[in-house]
Amino acid sequence: MKYNLMYDYAEGAHPDILHALERTNFVQQLGYGDDFYCGEAAQIIKSLLENEDAEVHFVSGGTHANLIVLSSSLRPYESVIAASTGHISIHEAGAIESSGHKINEVFVPDGKLTREKIQEVIEVHTDEHCVIPKLVYISNATELGNIYNKNEIELLSEFCRSRGLLFYMDGARLGSSIMSAYQDLKMSDLCELLDAFYIGGTKNGALLGEAIVIVNNDLKRNFRHSIKQRGGLLAKGRVIGLQFSEMFRKGLFFELAAHANKMADLLAVGIAQKGYRFYTVPQTNMLFPVFREKEILKMEENYLFYRWKKLDADETVIRLVTSWATDEKMILKFINEL
Amino acid sequence: MKYNLMYDYAEGAHPDILHALERTNFVQQLGYGDDFYCGEAAQIIKSLLENEDAEVHFVSGGTHANLIVLSSSLRPYESVIAASTGHISIHEAGAIESSGHKINEVFVPDGKLTREKIQEVIEVHTDEHCVIPKLVYISNATELGNIYNKNEIELLSEFCRSRGLLFYMDGARLGSSIMSAYQDLKMSDLCELLDAFYIGGTKNGALLGEAIVIVNNDLKRNFRHSIKQRGGLLAKGRVIGLQFSEMFRKGLFFELAAHANKMADLLAVGIAQKGYRFYTVPQTNMLFPVFREKEILKMEENYLFYRWKKLDADETVIRLVTSWATDEKMILKFINEL
Amino acid sequence: MKYNLMYDYAEGAHPDILHALERTNFVQQLGYGDDFYCGEAAQIIKSLLENEDAEVHFVSGGTHANLIVLSSSLRPYESVIAASTGHISIHEAGAIESSGHKINEVFVPDGKLTREKIQEVIEVHTDEHCVIPKLVYISNATELGNIYNKNEIELLSEFCRSRGLLFYMDGARLGSSIMSAYQDLKMSDLCELLDAFYIGGTKNGALLGEAIVIVNNDLKRNFRHSIKQRGGLLAKGRVIGLQFSEMFRKGLFFELAAHANKMADLLAVGIAQKGYRFYTVPQTNMLFPVFREKEILKMEENYLFYRWKKLDADETVIRLVTSWATDEKMILKFINEL
Amino acid sequence: MKYNLMYDYAEGAHPDILHALERTNFVQQLGYGDDFYCGEAAQIIKSLLENEDAEVHFVSGGTHANLIVLSSSLRPYESVIAASTGHISIHEAGAIESSGHKINEVFVPDGKLTREKIQEVIEVHTDEHCVIPKLVYISNATELGNIYNKNEIELLSEFCRSRGLLFYMDGARLGSSIMSAYQDLKMSDLCELLDAFYIGGTKNGALLGEAIVIVNNDLKRNFRHSIKQRGGLLAKGRVIGLQFSEMFRKGLFFELAAHANKMADLLAVGIAQKGYRFYTVPQTNMLFPVFREKEILKMEENYLFYRWKKLDADETVIRLVTSWATDEKMILKFINEL
Repeated sequence: MKYNLMYDYAEGAHPDILHALERTNFVQQLGYGDDFYCGEAAQIIKSLLENEDAEVHFVSGGTHANLIVLSSSLRPYESVIAASTGHISIHEAGAIESSGHKINEVFVPDGKLTREKIQEVIEVHTDEHCVIPKLVYISNATELGNIYNKNEIELLSEFCRSRGLLFYMDGARLGSSIMSAYQDLKMSDLCELLDAFYIGGTKNGALLGEAIVIVNNDLKRNFRHSIKQRGGLLAKGRVIGLQFSEMFRKGLFFELAAHANKMADLLAVGIAQKGYRFYTVPQTNMLFPVFREKEILKMEENYLFYRWKKLDADETVIRLVTSWATDEKMILKFINEL
Repeated sequence: MKYNLMYDYAEGAHPDILHALERTNFVQQLGYGDDFYCGEAAQIIKSLLENEDAEVHFVSGGTHANLIVLSSSLRPYESVIAASTGHISIHEAGAIESSGHKINEVFVPDGKLTREKIQEVIEVHTDEHCVIPKLVYISNATELGNIYNKNEIELLSEFCRSRGLLFYMDGARLGSSIMSAYQDLKMSDLCELLDAFYIGGTKNGALLGEAIVIVNNDLKRNFRHSIKQRGGLLAKGRVIGLQFSEMFRKGLFFELAAHANKMADLLAVGIAQKGYRFYTVPQTNMLFPVFREKEILKMEENYLFYRWKKLDADETVIRLVTSWATDEKMILKFINEL
Repeated sequence: MKYNLMYDYAEGAHPDILHALERTNFVQQLGYGDDFYCGEAAQIIKSLLENEDAEVHFVSGGTHANLIVLSSSLRPYESVIAASTGHISIHEAGAIESSGHKINEVFVPDGKLTREKIQEVIEVHTDEHCVIPKLVYISNATELGNIYNKNEIELLSEFCRSRGLLFYMDGARLGSSIMSAYQDLKMSDLCELLDAFYIGGTKNGALLGEAIVIVNNDLKRNFRHSIKQRGGLLAKGRVIGLQFSEMFRKGLFFELAAHANKMADLLAVGIAQKGYRFYTVPQTNMLFPVFREKEILKMEENYLFYRWKKLDADETVIRLVTSWATDEKMILKFINEL
Repeated sequence: MKYNLMYDYAEGAHPDILHALERTNFVQQLGYGDDFYCGEAAQIIKSLLENEDAEVHFVSGGTHANLIVLSSSLRPYESVIAASTGHISIHEAGAIESSGHKINEVFVPDGKLTREKIQEVIEVHTDEHCVIPKLVYISNATELGNIYNKNEIELLSEFCRSRGLLFYMDGARLGSSIMSAYQDLKMSDLCELLDAFYIGGTKNGALLGEAIVIVNNDLKRNFRHSIKQRGGLLAKGRVIGLQFSEMFRKGLFFELAAHANKMADLLAVGIAQKGYRFYTVPQTNMLFPVFREKEILKMEENYLFYRWKKLDADETVIRLVTSWATDEKMILKFINEL
């Protein structure tokens, strides 16, 4: 059995979550997110965000969250600006375009958008022959394992507002970003800076589920219709509400992210000490070290992970991901075998 | 606390399912449905269906299942024929149209399509100014609590094939239909008669999840792309695979449906004995009795249920739904209070 | 050669229009509707409508006009209420649904919507499981050759405003409606009563082209983007602008419609005098008389027309259409041959 | 009055076309492209293409042609590969995405796709998390005024076939490409090499209209439904059919393109002789010379043209376009004033 360092969803859920499901199992509840637990979770999250006016909605996965929020926020000819490495750009099977909207993809080597790059997109979309770029999409942590810190988000936020752009954050790995040693952004900053975002549960110890947070009032209108129309309104919404309630009630969400980060740090230090380099700076629970073919073949005997990008005939970037459930012994074993 | 007779998803999941989640929680698995449990569940379902060539895919909800299958099966100008009471016609917030396809809605008082009604639709769609009706959608059990029996399905199936129409069944409550005392259709008949269908888990004791079964080879092509593009490919696909494995391994699925039906029978007999009539014949776990306003107001003090349709100034059809978890004592209490 | 009574677009354009094209042919103009003639035509139309704030846009056909206006006016989960005989419901190959929007089709025997029927639709669309009916679509003249008079339009307009519904009129045959002997509605009433509509050129003597009029400010925003995105922004927009300028400069539009109506009146009187009845009251340039099979077969030897609807084994409704170019002698001949 | 060198659609139509419209004006015809002239034009075009099996359809504009063909050819999760300078990529207001399909944009400095660039796109789209690149879009002539010659098209065609890709050509300026001094591709080569393409009328002397040619049998199925659904089936299809008949009956199409090219050659030589350079090699009726701000400001006093791209603080690429109607005297005057 190979050990999975491929992603942060190789295991089930944190045991507390399963216990909560068991504990509440026979309590009858209303359907479609009108249940007690969704209400409770929404309230806890809003308190944490320090924003009582935000709307919180729960859906089962990240691609679905992105699809629902973006298609609900844009008029037909409005487009999304995203890094070409963005999850919506390359790894959602054209979900955004399927809803009718173009993604203006920006090439940025580290996967992080900048004001200059956004400005360049705006400048070439000048008349009715072009789409109107309307929403800026970032992932934090990014798909390349690095983060936007508070200042970077502030600059983008300010820029978006000055240009009439909506600012949205894909938080599939928000936990890992927030708990990163390099991060000064806080949960309570998010509603100040963003129009909408989602907090990822699936990749941080939930069985499944993401919490969409809508801050901008214009985007709140009939949002449940949008969820329903896209097939995302779960009859037993309680299943996700309860998990978020459990995760945020006493900080479990942050503990799990901290564990994943800690395991990644350990792994990164070990790899670096053996003399290997990284394709992007290690900041979260995803690492992108560079190895030679021979080394990778050997690792593949005992571990599962993605080959991310071939650099040349011999060298390849691989992706190593740790999770809330990663076993420290396995990390030490991995380093030891290098 | 009012007792919920509103729907069959007021409770969590059957305890065996929760135990299975717990038991397998720390076993690492591949993501996106490539895990052991999805494979196992698909195999068990195919054996039960007596069709090794069928493809089985798992998604989180029924609206999503309908949306994914239908949008994946049709060319842009092809339409769906459905009863005007069909779930896709009125209760999915325009999900099918959102994917670009018209629903040709047919008015049938009992919610059951007939060959004659389908033929009428075909006859008025004759040239390139019209859509091309291409797929017949039925729900079994229907949204009105009745069923299509084997002969009815066979006649529709034959008709569809002779007209080049795809034949699809929404099986949100397939368990209840199959276990109905009025039903002679068997699971092993389904692949003979249908091009695609789904087996509903959410409304029959699962935490969440539906199993899409694709029989027609043309519809299998790149189906996982369709799931992903619509936001339905769960990272932890194991969560649904495991539940279906658990439900079909030893017949739990059928036991749960049988319980729901038994409770509905008990309720129907009680209501009938008190002299009330039904809007549609009681055949599954959904009943549509007719009561007067005064009676309904009294029931509403202790029970949750839908007012379905106002018949006149005084009489209203209500919907009562039993589930795998319905407590017999509460049914007896309900009857007693009539 | 059979004489065409099939539709009002069997001939080319009124000669004045062709002369105008010739006269202006070598004058260089800006593209995409920014030319002098589009500007001039828009100004003339706005004066006629007595509304300087309306926006006027030109597109090449009616289905396109409907598609562009409706898809541009609605959010994804919003629907259109229309008669089941409406052009968008049955004769546009699912164009509206293709843009993602459901049409709530209402059965009205004479093809004319009423407040009661609209109200019925609203009442069954109550929550996020349903679409939100948002726009009322009527055709004037209707697809059954009758008209909405001023009072009928006023009642619908008032009703729509009180319910937050947009009110849109397909004016493919607006000329014939306005010039109908039964009509008291005037061009100058339209902007008072409607949110948007289009004035049909193709079916009233233009080579091609429809003039979309947007009254409601909310619907004006970025409308040219919507036209472009749907493929409707003609490089040589001048071709349509010039025609509308020519048609409305000195009343040609109304003269042509009056001729078509006069020919239809002549034909209707002749048919009635021979003892035949009509399926709908003859009010415009489209007639729906009822004939027996033997009679129809004989007519088909010399004339082209549609068989509209089979009433029983022997009787069939046919559709006879006159145009700006219909030859009075042919009408007399047709009557004579009855 | 400034002389328009902005585009090749500043004038009306070649006089022969207007005369043909006049000559045939009162001949009654069937609607929707079933008329005599559409049939005649299709036949002439098929003869010229030396392919009797091709299907020819007429629509009013180029963006519409692209939208209809591409959306009709692809399954929902299939994408288009195009140059980032491609008309569909940047200048059609997101029409392709609006129909649900992603465009994989490839950066190529001269706007011409290569096999290597296509291969790169294919290689990163490997599983169900990605779209499936399915159709290669090129413009010939390109948006940068250069052409694909026969060999380049053959290599791309062969490559597409070997990879299961559809190969489509936007021929908005096919006339100018075919008549280019640098071109060895012939009309009779097209059906051998492409799955579908369109022949541009609007930019080569027609009033409006493009002829879509479908070669691949799979793409022919129900194509008229696709045209209708997108709003492109003109009631008076004769208007476009007649123009193409006129243009291809005796070679007018090629004469007009030859004139435009001749004027562009004259202009290019004049510009070069004055010592200016070009951003792309002049090959068709669109030139992209580089001038300094002061020079451009002076030209703008007497001529209309686009500023294409700012190269640095002082230098800018402008676009100069000649047409079938360009006056040689004006070209000489322009050169003279340099």
